[in-house]
Amino acid sequence: MRAYKELSREELQSLKEEFEKQFEEAKAKGLKLDMSRGKPSAEQLDLSMGMMDVLTSESNLICEQGVDCRNYGILDGIVEAKRLLSDMMEVPIDNIIIYGNSSLNVMFDTVSRCMTHGVLGMTPWCRLDKVKFLCPVPGYDRHFAITEYFGIEMINIPMTPAGPDMDMVEKLVSEDEAIKGIWCVPKYSNPQGISYSDETVLRFAALKPAAKDFRIFWDNAYGIHHLYDDDQDQLIEILEACRRAGNPDMVYKFSSTSKITFPGSGVAAIAASDANLQEIRRQMTIQTIGHDKVNQLRHARFFKDINGMHEHMRKHAAIMRPKFEAVTDLLEQELTGLEIGSWIKPKGGYFISFDAMEGCAKAIVAKCKEAGMVMTGAGATYPYGIDPKDSNIRIAPSYPTLEEMKEAAKLFVLCVKLVSVEKLLEQ
Amino acid sequence: MRAYKELSREELQSLKEEFEKQFEEAKAKGLKLDMSRGKPSAEQLDLSMGMMDVLTSESNLICEQGVDCRNYGILDGIVEAKRLLSDMMEVPIDNIIIYGNSSLNVMFDTVSRCMTHGVLGMTPWCRLDKVKFLCPVPGYDRHFAITEYFGIEMINIPMTPAGPDMDMVEKLVSEDEAIKGIWCVPKYSNPQGISYSDETVLRFAALKPAAKDFRIFWDNAYGIHHLYDDDQDQLIEILEACRRAGNPDMVYKFSSTSKITFPGSGVAAIAASDANLQEIRRQMTIQTIGHDKVNQLRHARFFKDINGMHEHMRKHAAIMRPKFEAVTDLLEQELTGLEIGSWIKPKGGYFISFDAMEGCAKAIVAKCKEAGMVMTGAGATYPYGIDPKDSNIRIAPSYPTLEEMKEAAKLFVLCVKLVSVEKLLEQ
Repeated sequence: MRAYKELSREELQSLKEEFEKQFEEAKAKGLKLDMSRGKPSAEQLDLSMGMMDVLTSESNLICEQGVDCRNYGILDGIVEAKRLLSDMMEVPIDNIIIYGNSSLNVMFDTVSRCMTHGVLGMTPWCRLDKVKFLCPVPGYDRHFAITEYFGIEMINIPMTPAGPDMDMVEKLVSEDEAIKGIWCVPKYSNPQGISYSDETVLRFAALKPAAKDFRIFWDNAYGIHHLYDDDQDQLIEILEACRRAGNPDMVYKFSSTSKITFPGSGVAAIAASDANLQEIRRQMTIQTIGHDKVNQLRHARFFKDINGMHEHMRKHAAIMRPKFEAVTDLLEQELTGLEIGSWIKPKGGYFISFDAMEGCAKAIVAKCKEAGMVMTGAGATYPYGIDPKDSNIRIAPSYPTLEEMKEAAKLFVLCVKLVSVEKLLEQ
Repeated sequence: MRAYKELSREELQSLKEEFEKQFEEAKAKGLKLDMSRGKPSAEQLDLSMGMMDVLTSESNLICEQGVDCRNYGILDGIVEAKRLLSDMMEVPIDNIIIYGNSSLNVMFDTVSRCMTHGVLGMTPWCRLDKVKFLCPVPGYDRHFAITEYFGIEMINIPMTPAGPDMDMVEKLVSEDEAIKGIWCVPKYSNPQGISYSDETVLRFAALKPAAKDFRIFWDNAYGIHHLYDDDQDQLIEILEACRRAGNPDMVYKFSSTSKITFPGSGVAAIAASDANLQEIRRQMTIQTIGHDKVNQLRHARFFKDINGMHEHMRKHAAIMRPKFEAVTDLLEQELTGLEIGSWIKPKGGYFISFDAMEGCAKAIVAKCKEAGMVMTGAGATYPYGIDPKDSNIRIAPSYPTLEEMKEAAKLFVLCVKLVSVEKLLEQ
């Protein structure tokens, strides 16, 4: 394969005509594909249907603590759910609080509390002239949306294959007291599927922030969402790492079962130090009488323990793996050597990230849409929706069927080629 | 019956000795009664156990909109749940948003949003020097806890048999721009069981607040929680009343199924004008990917429609009614004419409110505790936990069994008498 940039105008022109013809053919198929969000497929959701039978009208709904899960009581989660999710999140059972159905909501709440009440007695962020967050990019659009909603200034931090650029993180955090947080998806990151290296995690734990109320927002959304049984990323546990580094309070860790059982009907949790959890409980006491304990019980009894959950995740992997490989195999087969894009083959998570030639992402997504395939908007993986290089595209292979995914991958590759050729011809 | 205040010291002394003897006997029984919170009894919870069988692994979990309730999607509630709860809340289906499991959480969120983002483009409350709320007293402790948590100054408004003292509400609201809200439980109020009269509701709707961002926080928690089939309070619907009075945006209305199905595993909702809901949706888009649709579907299919819900509430009433009457009958029988306390016999809701002689509430609650009966702390029904007259006590008859309730009522009456006699002897 010769790199496109080395082709003559005539060669490019001829490729363009060929791709345009193929594109018209694809368009004529009237495809309707959605690769826009990290939604589990119906086949994956079916894996959890047994959960609907776990509790019946004959069930005893008393939890281990002797409390009737149907009634008020127990603010921070029944012990069965705490045990399951603390195992899942690799933290001591006393360092976890069970929330409602969405970890996004827990993150929103956490930022909101920092705004109105500050962190451990420090000035509420809403009373400061300027609050800034570091945002590893590409990253998760809904993280950036939260900080934008609260008027927090976002600073891009480039991702490397080992995680965020830690030289930059360390420098900024130690110099600027206005920097109060950083968004992290440390394992099988959204969208690149990168897991932070040991060195990265340890450097996070050892940060020396100028702001005493700086917090790492550690969204371990894909902690057990492997694609392979025999090739899994390992992540150093951040709470323990921070404790050892003398920074026990520096991190909030989030997770949920949204992509394990049912999105929207799962169980979310936060893990943090005793001091942080004490502050969170003080808020919760005012905020709610308690979250849905019946659903917590349903989850705990369905999985029994963390082994049951790992077993369950293997079934998800069996469904997801071929779809991921349909994309990465085709990218490799069709684009290797052309120098019009790069990608990482992930070992878990929900996304594949594709970096097109500069200035091509928006055009590629638009082309895909023209042929009936919705993708995440180009730019969405950057704060304010602005990808300075207009290069990154997030591919979400979970929702379509495998057949659709193969079709989608072909269309995507075609659009990448076509737009790249057009771009090179413009120059 | 002669009023205690007309008795001689000798008569009082003799009563005191008699009551002390009775109290020691009661104490010796080693009672363990909890009348502290408005918790449904196990018998009431059993009424909803059928809900556990509504969805099984064989069920179709697609809602009427064609969306799979197991997956992401639909931010503000599935149409089945909207229909059910809008009927329950007596508002148009388009003026409702379905939330998670707790209306308290919705109220907290609403105040929090006003703090950080303001109301319809106006200055966020956290940027103002002073924010005040009006608090009809006695009222709901958890309302007051929210405003206290956010540093909002609370002003007591006395309740009358027709609702809050509207002369005072109108005067304060029209004069003071710092007054941004008022907490209301308009039907079968917590704790008095008072329903606002037509005049009260219409005066609320016609308020002319100095603050354009003044909002009525209308917590219609007991809208369909009647005790009697043939003697029910009727409440004018506030959204429509505000609309007609030219104040469409002035009210947020809250409700939930917490005391209809399972507390903590129910469905909550907010109803408001289009403009208000638009602002709330803007927040929700950032805050969550959506609430628990499976639980919404479970509720909708269990009740089928509002008639099913009313039928269900009759079963609750059949359980609650004798317990309420065990208290009010005994109060009437034992205390009438003694002039040591007053109460209202409620037609619905979860509480009976008792006003003891000034300076006696704390002592009565302490006496009850001494004999093994936990009541809501005296003062809890007032902002900051301060009842200026130390007079109001909230009785929650729902949780104990009928037999326990009869025992509890006897003990309560005894403690009232004993403490009152002691008080009169002190003077």
